[in-house]
Amino acid sequence: MRISEIGKMICPVARAVNVVGDPWTLMIIRELFLGSRRFDQFESCLGLSPRLLSARIRSLVAEGVVVRSLYQERPKRYEYRLTQKGLDLWPVIMALRAWGDRWEEWPAGPPTTLRHRSCGEVTATEIHCAACGEEMGPTDVVIEQSPTALAERKALARGGTLQDIG
Amino acid sequence: MRISEIGKMICPVARAVNVVGDPWTLMIIRELFLGSRRFDQFESCLGLSPRLLSARIRSLVAEGVVVRSLYQERPKRYEYRLTQKGLDLWPVIMALRAWGDRWEEWPAGPPTTLRHRSCGEVTATEIHCAACGEEMGPTDVVIEQSPTALAERKALARGGTLQDIG
Repeated sequence: MRISEIGKMICPVARAVNVVGDPWTLMIIRELFLGSRRFDQFESCLGLSPRLLSARIRSLVAEGVVVRSLYQERPKRYEYRLTQKGLDLWPVIMALRAWGDRWEEWPAGPPTTLRHRSCGEVTATEIHCAACGEEMGPTDVVIEQSPTALAERKALARGGTLQDIG
Repeated sequence: MRISEIGKMICPVARAVNVVGDPWTLMIIRELFLGSRRFDQFESCLGLSPRLLSARIRSLVAEGVVVRSLYQERPKRYEYRLTQKGLDLWPVIMALRAWGDRWEEWPAGPPTTLRHRSCGEVTATEIHCAACGEEMGPTDVVIEQSPTALAERKALARGGTLQDIG
């Protein structure tokens, strides 16, 4: 499979990875959640080349994750904001944050603290069950695959390609 | 900044992205959460070249995300499992899943259903506050950056590089 074919798989993780599972793209989304809006802010805070940055932002706009809007007429200046689709990536960034926070070493202390506005406490993100409200972890759920998703996995396991299946 | 320098940033998201924020790496971790253990399972279910797969698995083992163990002596056969550090990536995969599920089109219905073992219901992952237990979204939290993290951002914004800062 070529990496571009990930986006054709019958798997929600694969589709998400195809749109945002690239290091710079994830860093641009992080930057948007930190409040950056302008191209030059992304460029300086991430230090990546304008060409790479521009390609990734164009792709995020094309995917509807980011919207570009004019905030100044003369000279024309644009800013970028997360759409609802983009804001829905918050759990992804929070999950990466929690993991980096726990498993990397921070000799000068944790780089970020999360504070919950409504209760005012320092917080962390926990995964809870949408049905019963209890906290959940990897061993608490069963992933049930649909017949079409299972058929794709079986075909791939037999050495087929996505083209054979589709 | 080169992509390899992301791993030096004083930011937990950047550090996590440096270790797992690559499309194939995320797909291998998905595969591990789906129960795959053997090299040939990853290879067939993901359809990527043995060379690419091998490089990514080696890197995951080196990072302590995956552990390799012998499960057969003759001929020698190895299997790969998530360590605790690897299992802690579950929220990342679940967040990608939720996003792909919501924002991609599924003409044959959603590819996966999540069932909570203890309550038995079809579930979804919700983010709750670790302090008060309430559900949280992107506008419910304030991200407070540490002095060292802020200093790095300011230096980058002035056009510095991580080398200047470090």
